[in-house]
Amino acid sequence: MKALVVGGSGYSGGELLRILRGHGKVDSVEATSRTYKGKPVSDVHTNLKGICDETFEEYDAGKADCDIAFLALPHGEGMEHAPALLQKGIKVVDLGADYRIKDAAVYERYYGKHKNPELLSKAVYGLPELFREKIRKAQLVANPGCYATAAILAIAPASKFKDKIDAERIIVDAKSGTSGAGVKPSEFLHHSEVADNIKAYKVTGHRHQPEMDSIIGQLIPHASVSFTPTLIPVVRGILSDTHMFCKLTLDDLKRQYSEFYGKERFVRIVENVYTKNVLYSNYCDISVHLDDEKGRAVIVSAIDNLVKGAAGQAVQNMNLMMGYGEAEGIDSLPYHP
Amino acid sequence: MKALVVGGSGYSGGELLRILRGHGKVDSVEATSRTYKGKPVSDVHTNLKGICDETFEEYDAGKADCDIAFLALPHGEGMEHAPALLQKGIKVVDLGADYRIKDAAVYERYYGKHKNPELLSKAVYGLPELFREKIRKAQLVANPGCYATAAILAIAPASKFKDKIDAERIIVDAKSGTSGAGVKPSEFLHHSEVADNIKAYKVTGHRHQPEMDSIIGQLIPHASVSFTPTLIPVVRGILSDTHMFCKLTLDDLKRQYSEFYGKERFVRIVENVYTKNVLYSNYCDISVHLDDEKGRAVIVSAIDNLVKGAAGQAVQNMNLMMGYGEAEGIDSLPYHP
Amino acid sequence: MKALVVGGSGYSGGELLRILRGHGKVDSVEATSRTYKGKPVSDVHTNLKGICDETFEEYDAGKADCDIAFLALPHGEGMEHAPALLQKGIKVVDLGADYRIKDAAVYERYYGKHKNPELLSKAVYGLPELFREKIRKAQLVANPGCYATAAILAIAPASKFKDKIDAERIIVDAKSGTSGAGVKPSEFLHHSEVADNIKAYKVTGHRHQPEMDSIIGQLIPHASVSFTPTLIPVVRGILSDTHMFCKLTLDDLKRQYSEFYGKERFVRIVENVYTKNVLYSNYCDISVHLDDEKGRAVIVSAIDNLVKGAAGQAVQNMNLMMGYGEAEGIDSLPYHP
Amino acid sequence: MKALVVGGSGYSGGELLRILRGHGKVDSVEATSRTYKGKPVSDVHTNLKGICDETFEEYDAGKADCDIAFLALPHGEGMEHAPALLQKGIKVVDLGADYRIKDAAVYERYYGKHKNPELLSKAVYGLPELFREKIRKAQLVANPGCYATAAILAIAPASKFKDKIDAERIIVDAKSGTSGAGVKPSEFLHHSEVADNIKAYKVTGHRHQPEMDSIIGQLIPHASVSFTPTLIPVVRGILSDTHMFCKLTLDDLKRQYSEFYGKERFVRIVENVYTKNVLYSNYCDISVHLDDEKGRAVIVSAIDNLVKGAAGQAVQNMNLMMGYGEAEGIDSLPYHP
Repeated sequence: MKALVVGGSGYSGGELLRILRGHGKVDSVEATSRTYKGKPVSDVHTNLKGICDETFEEYDAGKADCDIAFLALPHGEGMEHAPALLQKGIKVVDLGADYRIKDAAVYERYYGKHKNPELLSKAVYGLPELFREKIRKAQLVANPGCYATAAILAIAPASKFKDKIDAERIIVDAKSGTSGAGVKPSEFLHHSEVADNIKAYKVTGHRHQPEMDSIIGQLIPHASVSFTPTLIPVVRGILSDTHMFCKLTLDDLKRQYSEFYGKERFVRIVENVYTKNVLYSNYCDISVHLDDEKGRAVIVSAIDNLVKGAAGQAVQNMNLMMGYGEAEGIDSLPYHP
Repeated sequence: MKALVVGGSGYSGGELLRILRGHGKVDSVEATSRTYKGKPVSDVHTNLKGICDETFEEYDAGKADCDIAFLALPHGEGMEHAPALLQKGIKVVDLGADYRIKDAAVYERYYGKHKNPELLSKAVYGLPELFREKIRKAQLVANPGCYATAAILAIAPASKFKDKIDAERIIVDAKSGTSGAGVKPSEFLHHSEVADNIKAYKVTGHRHQPEMDSIIGQLIPHASVSFTPTLIPVVRGILSDTHMFCKLTLDDLKRQYSEFYGKERFVRIVENVYTKNVLYSNYCDISVHLDDEKGRAVIVSAIDNLVKGAAGQAVQNMNLMMGYGEAEGIDSLPYHP
Repeated sequence: MKALVVGGSGYSGGELLRILRGHGKVDSVEATSRTYKGKPVSDVHTNLKGICDETFEEYDAGKADCDIAFLALPHGEGMEHAPALLQKGIKVVDLGADYRIKDAAVYERYYGKHKNPELLSKAVYGLPELFREKIRKAQLVANPGCYATAAILAIAPASKFKDKIDAERIIVDAKSGTSGAGVKPSEFLHHSEVADNIKAYKVTGHRHQPEMDSIIGQLIPHASVSFTPTLIPVVRGILSDTHMFCKLTLDDLKRQYSEFYGKERFVRIVENVYTKNVLYSNYCDISVHLDDEKGRAVIVSAIDNLVKGAAGQAVQNMNLMMGYGEAEGIDSLPYHP
Repeated sequence: MKALVVGGSGYSGGELLRILRGHGKVDSVEATSRTYKGKPVSDVHTNLKGICDETFEEYDAGKADCDIAFLALPHGEGMEHAPALLQKGIKVVDLGADYRIKDAAVYERYYGKHKNPELLSKAVYGLPELFREKIRKAQLVANPGCYATAAILAIAPASKFKDKIDAERIIVDAKSGTSGAGVKPSEFLHHSEVADNIKAYKVTGHRHQPEMDSIIGQLIPHASVSFTPTLIPVVRGILSDTHMFCKLTLDDLKRQYSEFYGKERFVRIVENVYTKNVLYSNYCDISVHLDDEKGRAVIVSAIDNLVKGAAGQAVQNMNLMMGYGEAEGIDSLPYHP
């Protein structure tokens, strides 16, 4: 099987190349990059020196010859390429935001005008734990945002308790490492500015909020998610606290969360959530807490933003779309320490 | 003037010794430590080598000869010493939790039985921005908890809008460095376990929650604060997000916060809160945000947990109690980077 | 094939369990721990929750039933178990220092009295790139120290230039993360003490110096290595600078290093050495530099101290001893970022 | 007294502004910046919000009205401004490299053509511990490089043992945080690339090597210093290991180092050197070690690269040039933790 990574020089692209390289069903991987065309992949991803020394190509839809294409591009660029690829019968997983939000008006408010809004209804939201069957049949999968993955997996099981939670006031307070902000140098992400620092940013108005609302709204009518991220001086990892006021016992919650994810390979219900327990793996760890006195449930979830929050989940989606084992190529285990 | 630091080997004690050393009104400082008695202070606080080489003494209430005593002890130990010191006419600032909560029953639920509950009503909560006049006259000051300092300063100005905020569902989601957990080695705080990691802990039930409730309850009747901390791999600094649902405009909020703290030396209303802007200083930075769509205000506040969250605030209280300039000895500026 | 990890609760033991778990030729792995016997492995190595929930056993040589045993124990404890295991025909890889130094007198000076010095001459030093054929036939392999691995791989190719280097004054200045110091909490390794800090320790007299001397002495007569480590606030990784005065050109050096390691799977000659390019992998990256003006060569090498510097190399040795493919189970790729 | 900081938007400039702000003898400070002219200083140095909100000016030699000017500019730019300032009778401290090297030919080899080489012989090298009296009388002081400061302070006392050390083969292996590389974002200094990483760079050929040679050569004839730096993922701090082969006892060394720096306010001879013990202060900590077996002395030194390695030392020089107390304005104490 042939895979194509469009935009292979960023962090998600690099992680994709790394994973696909070791994937038993993938015979060849081609990577494109406008900036680095003609240069060896391992000049950019120096971890792959001697392993992935092929050069980046320039993307050319006409010549694209593959079974599946991953679009690892800045928001707004994926939609320039998806239609042509789909027309050639190539399956597409977009790691950007272009097909995550069904409502074109909402998309436009947060990202700008959509170029092919007719595809929005055809795209499947690529969160396998919730939409596995649809993904199997999809031609176009919108890979979820990293924050959205952590938040939605934390909230989804609570959909059982629609009437017992204050669904209109769900608060997601997420802490993320810097790799989620990408490979491009800036003052905001300069080491001396980030290290030893905890930085508030996009305290309100983050683009993943409508994405959470869109998906959670399908599970819990009238639900409304309020989202705030914080930049933490680590490279990888998101730890997300979801605060929900409710009339439930801790037992109710724990039982439901354990059942909901009982058969999932990549979701673990644990006592204590630490990002390091999931880094470099496709796992999402979740813990369930209740403040009896206040009637507040807290669901803590953690993922590696570049694996379960991007490239790993993209390959999980590919595995479903292509009929492979769901964990193929993404079964590596997290590390200690 | 003579100062005594009871329990000078921990992080708060060390910071106190450092500050008092450079305080223009303090003529002498004595430090006690059970564990390190007879050893030079600079063996424990190696930053002070050549500067503070006097030895730790063993604490002896009978011999205590000073104008003010700082109790930098584990919770439950301060109350063993405070009565005798007060009886000798020595002013006391307790950096522990023993006199922070007025209600002995609440204290007992979170910390265990109180040994001199009659002092609870006499102790003044040492947050100068709110209780300056009382502190001036106090003999016994309960220095606020670090998380409580950041949260209460963030919420207090909102007391103006009692009817327009959902005061029963205030959520404080705070991120803290490891120095707040103290000097004692443990697996939880071992470098290899903490670094690159984001760790949930005491997701519900943290002891600073009743402290917040107690003080905020005085400002906003029926207010109830829900608190969750997260351990971040930095040494110093707390960044605290306070989420409040409200019917207010951003202008309302910004105006009120600016006015409320307009004359405060140590509180700055800023656009972007980063912990590094306050580290090693007594400042608290606060920013105000509103998610119009959701009616959610977010107040972000940041302090250095060992300065404004402990030793710096303790000296600020001392300055008030002794009639000195409030910023004396704690006017050092934060660093970049 | 059955493997046994004696001392599975430390960092090297945990990494071994993780690797062996995914090793295609290993049918079962048993782990022992005196401290944690009866507790699930995943209580200690929480990354393996749901993956490795079997309990730690207490070690009992009599019941040991396996093809190969890894001793991941503090120095001095491995030699208590090796003889009995060998006598049962079980192959042994000792990750401690007990069999690394051939000379019992030198061992004693640095570590204390040896309990079975007769085994010293039978043990093979487990650095596959230098001693591959001997390892294939070995019953007892002494897995090299982490610093020694990085230093010896950096120096070995220079043995070609015996007469052109000042072999008596080779200086190895290595920088290491904290995981090399182990899992046991201490003030020295407490997060607040290590983070943001660069700490000199064992500036002279480190135990890996005689190990380097012993092996390098076999390659370059009269060679003498001077070693100094520094503790760096990262979790994993060693970067080692080897300074050698010489009469050589950069071309001489580069050609020799490239040839020497030309066929090695796990050694890469690169332009710039960064530890992250090898973390979580069994690679050793090496770069070669020459200060023409001063006649000083600098060889920079980097490894993951827990993989190529411990567990990964131990499995590489196992693969050779058992006749498996040398990279089996340790072919995972490093990450970016 | 009036001070001017030319180039106030970088890290050294910011630290200068911070220090001068609290300096008892400085009545006013003006800061210039080409990039940020017209913008408040606290927009760039957000730590100084509410404290230093004056705007950056554009530099104009003609209008310069001050007693002393600090040039905190990229190498090559200081020499464009120094002559005009000196001609106006303004004392100058150049924090760049333009006047550090006496030999114009050496300067040119490492930095490019010098524009006013006649000033090289008039400039005084601003290391107060070695050249205090000359600095007192200087009009133009070349503030030492950060690595050079740490190395020269470590080597200088050994000049007593000229005949007993192998002075031609002194190796300085220094570890530095990222703030030394400046404020400008780049891929090399991007947080995700630096964090958790140890990066070799300029392994040979670093520009501070000739600076060390130049100064050490004045103290120890025929001395030759070989220098290699490594980038460490901390923000501030240099820890420098100086390796010297010698025929000396540890007592010889310790006695000499203690005597040499016995009266120095800012140099401490300690047992264990950790960068954190000097961060945010003007101290240089030094420890002395000897490997008897190998005849190798190791001198470990540590400074804060932005204080003793830049702005602090610049103010120390100013104090000498202006006849103030040497520690005025730079007597703040390091922190723990």
